[in-house]
Amino acid sequence: MYEFDALKVKNQCVEWIKDFFAKNGPDCNAIVGISGGKDSSIVAALCVEALGVDRVIGVLMPNGEQADIDCARLLVNHLGIKNYEINVKAAVDGVLASMPADMEISTQTRTNISPRIRMTTLYAVAQSNNGRVANTCNLSEDWVGYSTRYGDQAGDFSPCSFITVTEMKQIGHLLGLPKELVEKTPIDGLCGKTDEENLGFTYAELDKYIREGVIESEDKKANIDRRHKLNLFKLEYMPCFKPEI
Amino acid sequence: MYEFDALKVKNQCVEWIKDFFAKNGPDCNAIVGISGGKDSSIVAALCVEALGVDRVIGVLMPNGEQADIDCARLLVNHLGIKNYEINVKAAVDGVLASMPADMEISTQTRTNISPRIRMTTLYAVAQSNNGRVANTCNLSEDWVGYSTRYGDQAGDFSPCSFITVTEMKQIGHLLGLPKELVEKTPIDGLCGKTDEENLGFTYAELDKYIREGVIESEDKKANIDRRHKLNLFKLEYMPCFKPEI
Repeated sequence: MYEFDALKVKNQCVEWIKDFFAKNGPDCNAIVGISGGKDSSIVAALCVEALGVDRVIGVLMPNGEQADIDCARLLVNHLGIKNYEINVKAAVDGVLASMPADMEISTQTRTNISPRIRMTTLYAVAQSNNGRVANTCNLSEDWVGYSTRYGDQAGDFSPCSFITVTEMKQIGHLLGLPKELVEKTPIDGLCGKTDEENLGFTYAELDKYIREGVIESEDKKANIDRRHKLNLFKLEYMPCFKPEI
Repeated sequence: MYEFDALKVKNQCVEWIKDFFAKNGPDCNAIVGISGGKDSSIVAALCVEALGVDRVIGVLMPNGEQADIDCARLLVNHLGIKNYEINVKAAVDGVLASMPADMEISTQTRTNISPRIRMTTLYAVAQSNNGRVANTCNLSEDWVGYSTRYGDQAGDFSPCSFITVTEMKQIGHLLGLPKELVEKTPIDGLCGKTDEENLGFTYAELDKYIREGVIESEDKKANIDRRHKLNLFKLEYMPCFKPEI
């Protein structure tokens, strides 16, 4: 039986963040995109514990109107961190408007533009604020490819990409974050459905499978395995040709 | 004495591209951002040799006016590949305009926005054209950090990131590319100086140092080593915390 020690892992993670900054920018600030969901909330809180409240900057990036922007505001106020609210709509629309008139723009294309514009925006904030950009992905989402390569998959350091959703929630509560943020149903901001509706299995099922290798439904197992295999490339540096010299 | 066999390496690279597509998208097209310089010209030509002229799409991405856009047009016409010309200015300006009024935007910040918008644009073209995005960096530039992380450093496959500038030129001539493209002095589109003016050493010096470990000036050696060490992080997947579970 797999047991998760939230306190131990949280403390290890805080030490790891300290160590990353000691080696890669002792005077730098952590720049965290704040979506209003649990992952960015937890990453921001971990950075505050590691670096102190004055070295963490939250960046809210609505694309036009964001229905749950109040959750993002709640988080930055709860932590008391400096924050910026930057609307990415003009840039997203700028990319869309520039596309050739005769090119059919798929929904998939459209939905992947905003995470990349958010990455661009986060790095602009980082470069102007002596920053290092935090990746806010978790293991469960990464496992099945729930990220946009070079979008939210990007970053300079990743505190939580080997922590499952189930484990993230435990850490979120341990950090004393508002319950409504930690337990919020993850909605795919891209299409409005819940993640679990999109995926066809629950995070509880996925996380048990990741940690214990156990899953009851063969269909769900096949679904997870297929997504995992198809999306592994996002979690690696791109392949490069090396000449035999 | 180091000897470079341009024909052998070119052929290996073409086979590698074929193999990448066989495994990662047998029906996919190569999407190549065409700057008008030698690297993107050579990568596009290698993709044409590997996949055929109908499976390569060139994307010209001026930011407003581009002084050497004719070089980019020359290349796509020379190869006879399908191409799009997409101006990235609206998107770049959209990002800049969205930044908080009280935030000082450094030149460094400003210059790194356009490569990231170009990456976003290339992926939008790729997603709407069943594409895989080519990285067009070379070893010499990567060695000293001449790329923007998650901008031109991005891509799905990288044919030339282990080939030096000196070697690239030989391959370019072998591929029969227009001389004015292959021998063109690389200008940093970001600031208008030549690369060599910016760096403080020539590519010939750098390439000899990379391949043979030999460089005459101690100052130049220190300059190269410092840049190399500082920029290595760009060529790796970001560091991730792994809990001891």
